[in-house]
Amino acid sequence: MISIVLVSHSQKITEGLQEMIVEMVGDTVHIISSGGTGDGRLGTNALMIADNIATCTNSEHIYIFCDIGSAILSAETALELLDTELLEKTTIIDAPLVEGAFTAAVQSLVNPSKEAILQELTNVH
Amino acid sequence: MISIVLVSHSQKITEGLQEMIVEMVGDTVHIISSGGTGDGRLGTNALMIADNIATCTNSEHIYIFCDIGSAILSAETALELLDTELLEKTTIIDAPLVEGAFTAAVQSLVNPSKEAILQELTNVH
Repeated sequence: MISIVLVSHSQKITEGLQEMIVEMVGDTVHIISSGGTGDGRLGTNALMIADNIATCTNSEHIYIFCDIGSAILSAETALELLDTELLEKTTIIDAPLVEGAFTAAVQSLVNPSKEAILQELTNVH
Repeated sequence: MISIVLVSHSQKITEGLQEMIVEMVGDTVHIISSGGTGDGRLGTNALMIADNIATCTNSEHIYIFCDIGSAILSAETALELLDTELLEKTTIIDAPLVEGAFTAAVQSLVNPSKEAILQELTNVH
């Protein structure tokens, strides 16, 4: 199973996206909503993101999707907080948050390999 | 003033995105959350989208941002329901929902012309 961690300035966005993806792929993909500051404000939270990634220890690979600017910085900071084993199987994806995460989840039903997922994501813009 | 209409399978996504954009640009842009079916389910609703566009009569231009697949179809159907005057100033944008809408809103603070906004959107992927 793969994990997809959703990072946005808005918790509503990541919760809505999580619902959208789960409706399409069910529980075949481990989707984590990691948007907002964690205390209800708009923004991002590197510690929260790192903690969420740490729940993905059993995943073959962990894909991080972010929206804009500082969401990517927070995700990069979160990666610095991971242990080596987790870090080696975690990738921040350069693709649009909604369209990219949805595409990765659907692709994982067809072929969950990292190569196949990254290839499919090149079609997302 | 421009209008930005947000279309997604998820009302939470468009509400969260509306909040995110308003926090950045305030009330200088007319942002409409038009996600979901209108009765709380995941999906899209062409009539609701058309009704929302119709509230933008005073805008210089109306930009529609959609997430995936049928959201775009619903937006296209909505355009068929508009009167000619409104239709002429409405454009469905081929860009990612979150990143595209956010970029258009911020660009409109700098230069609200359609040319400038469409140009800036070419940088979004």
